[in-house]
Amino acid sequence: MMVEPTDAGNAGPSEDELARAIARLLSGPTPGVLLGPGDDAALVETGPGLGLLTADTLVEGLDFELHRPARDVGYKAIVVNVSDVAAMGGSPRFATVSLVLPSTVHVPWVMELYGGMLEACKEHACTIVGGDLSRGTEVVISVALTGEVSPGRVLSRRGARPGDRVVVTGSLGAAAGGLALLRADEQVLRAAAGTGWEHDLSQALDRPVARVGEGQTLAQHGATAMIDVSDGFLLDLSRLCEASAVGARVHLDAVPVHPSVVELSRVAEVEPLDLALSGGDDYELLATIPGDRFEQASEAMDGRFGTTLHDIGEVVGGSGLVGVDARGERPLQPKGWDHFA
Amino acid sequence: MMVEPTDAGNAGPSEDELARAIARLLSGPTPGVLLGPGDDAALVETGPGLGLLTADTLVEGLDFELHRPARDVGYKAIVVNVSDVAAMGGSPRFATVSLVLPSTVHVPWVMELYGGMLEACKEHACTIVGGDLSRGTEVVISVALTGEVSPGRVLSRRGARPGDRVVVTGSLGAAAGGLALLRADEQVLRAAAGTGWEHDLSQALDRPVARVGEGQTLAQHGATAMIDVSDGFLLDLSRLCEASAVGARVHLDAVPVHPSVVELSRVAEVEPLDLALSGGDDYELLATIPGDRFEQASEAMDGRFGTTLHDIGEVVGGSGLVGVDARGERPLQPKGWDHFA
Repeated sequence: MMVEPTDAGNAGPSEDELARAIARLLSGPTPGVLLGPGDDAALVETGPGLGLLTADTLVEGLDFELHRPARDVGYKAIVVNVSDVAAMGGSPRFATVSLVLPSTVHVPWVMELYGGMLEACKEHACTIVGGDLSRGTEVVISVALTGEVSPGRVLSRRGARPGDRVVVTGSLGAAAGGLALLRADEQVLRAAAGTGWEHDLSQALDRPVARVGEGQTLAQHGATAMIDVSDGFLLDLSRLCEASAVGARVHLDAVPVHPSVVELSRVAEVEPLDLALSGGDDYELLATIPGDRFEQASEAMDGRFGTTLHDIGEVVGGSGLVGVDARGERPLQPKGWDHFA
Repeated sequence: MMVEPTDAGNAGPSEDELARAIARLLSGPTPGVLLGPGDDAALVETGPGLGLLTADTLVEGLDFELHRPARDVGYKAIVVNVSDVAAMGGSPRFATVSLVLPSTVHVPWVMELYGGMLEACKEHACTIVGGDLSRGTEVVISVALTGEVSPGRVLSRRGARPGDRVVVTGSLGAAAGGLALLRADEQVLRAAAGTGWEHDLSQALDRPVARVGEGQTLAQHGATAMIDVSDGFLLDLSRLCEASAVGARVHLDAVPVHPSVVELSRVAEVEPLDLALSGGDDYELLATIPGDRFEQASEAMDGRFGTTLHDIGEVVGGSGLVGVDARGERPLQPKGWDHFA
């Protein structure tokens, strides 16, 4: 269903009306939830051991445009948080959703937004247990998410050691390709219309996949550090390296550029490797793992999830990133998505 | 320290710079926190049993003005969440902070904001473990907070029974008085300047107190339902009654109007009882409790925290709110603070 996001002539629903409409969407008993939305706080069962807590926000105009399908926006708002839990080796559990909405926003738009969030929650076995509503000039969707993780199976950004392999799940650059398509001129759009690669790129941008099982597989098979690729592969790799006080060499020919990005580059002025290295929004997992553990991890991941694990470089002493290809070595600048740029 | 909130000529810090400055503020080992800010998610120890999860957002222009001291804004952003945990009978533990900041915002303003949040966290023994930064046109501060509560000591909004007393901690209306002062004309401001009641009203608005110990005392002494007074006493009472499928009679002469509101009413056109009933932002606890448990609860609360527990009405069958005073009975409209009004 497409719904109009706003209506300038609409005074808008009251807070309680909208809260009730949302509560109806969220109602129903859920395992582990003793009190869901509608009280001062949600009451949930917490597992023994260790808890994860993360928060991530989508802002209109920065992370999404209001004319995009609300369902996709909601879906992504959950997945970007699930991806953070996945990058620790954990499983998502309970979410709160804080919404800032302009006075002109339509209730059906908000319902679609929640529909997308619920879809993502269902896929990842997590539950929205509360949140709040506020008025503002632009839509802001702040999600906080708890997760569970087994002690001894937690992966932070800090454990990479010189000699470890640098690995990444799936492929890179497709979401950045989707964004490039959104901004493309008519000639490019005509060439893309109806193709499989256009579909792939749009899906990658609107419906990212959080690699929950893959993260746990990496944790089980001896990975030493992990981060999700949200702001761009090089930027996220540089963050992992900085946290671990190491550097990395990246084999540029081994970077798994999404094939649809290559298709896009035939009709638009984009450099596939640039999109893969610095595009961001991929939500693939980037990890480090001892070389002798790679093969087993890779087989387990392929066997369980059909996800390819790519070996694309090595951790080195010192600091900074170096790219290697047939032309030789060169320093790599960790460009990527800066929410403040 | 007063800091200028914005500077239109400033390109602003990068996301990583600001994140690092915030991480430095938040650094240091904290009990229960295995991994704090700076990773994909925080890793914390969770107690056995039940967890609470809540989220509450402050929006510039709606919940605060940018020219107000950033430290107070930060303090309040935490306390309003702690109050939600208190209203369940729980104790706060771990918080995430999602900030949306305009490009013009000054780093010192953000540091002061965090300073206030840390101050509130210290007072309430909770810890900021993560969050995120985004760019937007107005400041949005979304806090999510976890809490702990003993099984059997949880108070929701749902347990009120006909015959229970309606009780409230402390006094009401002072924060609304503080807001009225902010909007007052020069004559009122001159009359208020330097008085003790001016100080009380400003403090009530800028530095609300979350009643954590009081909430637990009420839970221990047999309270049947509880809510914090955030959007206005009558509106919050009507929510509690609706959740419990009951009505309530409020003895209007027993409503604990803050004495400084009465002082304000001598120089400004405000009706003290209106501010107390519908002003909001009080963060007192409103509970229901069997009549034969009131005295013990009241003594325990006074003895432990010096907080007065006021008996101001009774739960009745049916629905709706009725006010009672020397003039008789009348229906009460649950007006209050609607974030969407």
